[in-house]
Amino acid sequence: MFSKSHTKYIQSLQQRKFRDEYGVFLAEGPKLVEELLRSPNLNCKQIFSLPFWLNANEQLVAAKNTIEVFEVQDFELEKISALATPNQVLAVFEKKKENQVDVTGKITLALDSIQDPGNLGTIIRIADWFGVENIICSRGCADMYNPKVIQSTMGSIARVNIVYTDLALWLKDKREVKTYAAALDGRNVKTLEGIKEGIILIGNESKGISDALLQMVNEKITIPKIGEAESLNAAVATGIILSHLFT
Amino acid sequence: MFSKSHTKYIQSLQQRKFRDEYGVFLAEGPKLVEELLRSPNLNCKQIFSLPFWLNANEQLVAAKNTIEVFEVQDFELEKISALATPNQVLAVFEKKKENQVDVTGKITLALDSIQDPGNLGTIIRIADWFGVENIICSRGCADMYNPKVIQSTMGSIARVNIVYTDLALWLKDKREVKTYAAALDGRNVKTLEGIKEGIILIGNESKGISDALLQMVNEKITIPKIGEAESLNAAVATGIILSHLFT
Repeated sequence: MFSKSHTKYIQSLQQRKFRDEYGVFLAEGPKLVEELLRSPNLNCKQIFSLPFWLNANEQLVAAKNTIEVFEVQDFELEKISALATPNQVLAVFEKKKENQVDVTGKITLALDSIQDPGNLGTIIRIADWFGVENIICSRGCADMYNPKVIQSTMGSIARVNIVYTDLALWLKDKREVKTYAAALDGRNVKTLEGIKEGIILIGNESKGISDALLQMVNEKITIPKIGEAESLNAAVATGIILSHLFT
Repeated sequence: MFSKSHTKYIQSLQQRKFRDEYGVFLAEGPKLVEELLRSPNLNCKQIFSLPFWLNANEQLVAAKNTIEVFEVQDFELEKISALATPNQVLAVFEKKKENQVDVTGKITLALDSIQDPGNLGTIIRIADWFGVENIICSRGCADMYNPKVIQSTMGSIARVNIVYTDLALWLKDKREVKTYAAALDGRNVKTLEGIKEGIILIGNESKGISDALLQMVNEKITIPKIGEAESLNAAVATGIILSHLFT
């Protein structure tokens, strides 16, 4: 039965400290939860749902037989939900294993201190759209299991492999592959077509790429500016670069 | 002197109703406020600032002689600020005049019910980056003067002309120019290079482009999907399309 201790547990998972301690993360809403339940890469531990959603998804839930299922009422879902409008179901999933990253013969994303959870989630979704398998995050990036990241990935969290590491050390170790960085005085993004292998380095929203990392970049890429805006959003820049690599 | 009635007035401007009634909008933080003060397109009505910022920007403020200036203390700025961390200065600007839009010989953006203020702000910033002069918003779009839109435009609000109208009627009237829409089964985005004139129609975040508008589209544009993500964020799609038109 749903109890006060569940409320406390779920609320604690809004904080990274407790997500790390328990090795789990939250997902909310029917669309996202259903997509993550269907993923072979994720294990669901608990479901807290209105009777309505449970009835409609009996088979999906039964197929994952390790799940604890709790039927909750509207006012209970409201207590545990972080959404402005609680939406039918909330689920607790185990964190994914980080897979080994092989950078040869493919495009890999590397993120230097992307701090806004919405930006990180959008970048994960963009990577998934273009079939980028791996994202390497510096330790200064937002936590991929932050609920705002999870909600904005729209399910892509299940498919993209994301690794947190010391990015400078990691890049040092990958010298056999070229590293490209979004910067102001580089090669026009439209000349990227045909590049099949490389690491694309994206910098922090306001500070760009740190000097230590910039030294390891082989080539800079520029999205030509015609108007006056000072910069482009980091996720938008990522989308533009990948679209020129892949289309 | 700063008074309770100022607090009430500023707080009311978080709501569209009062922004419409008074014809003004809010901007916060030194970077944004300074950029908007420098714009010849905007009139500032009031500034509420810590002494520190006022001292550093005496000339900038003096140059706009219609401004009422209020020196406030930290705890007062906290009361009127909508930011998680209040940042030195808050200003009230008059709304801009909507300019007539001429669509010939240029690229124009049209937005169908972009409801997320962050997305709308990011799209305005992208338009400014690529030198797109005009954005036509359907009445279902978020208010361009919503504080979240203003903050995420990063100053581009001053430079891009934005018009709210009945988009179907407006497009009907612009038949002399081709309308392109981001959709799933269209022409590859990479074939757009060289197009110098047209209206680019971007749809709602979850529903896409409404049927009524889709009928007025001359050509669909597709960003090829290689991976599995269900969709791309509307602002990211806008950035990708404009980058292929302009680079």
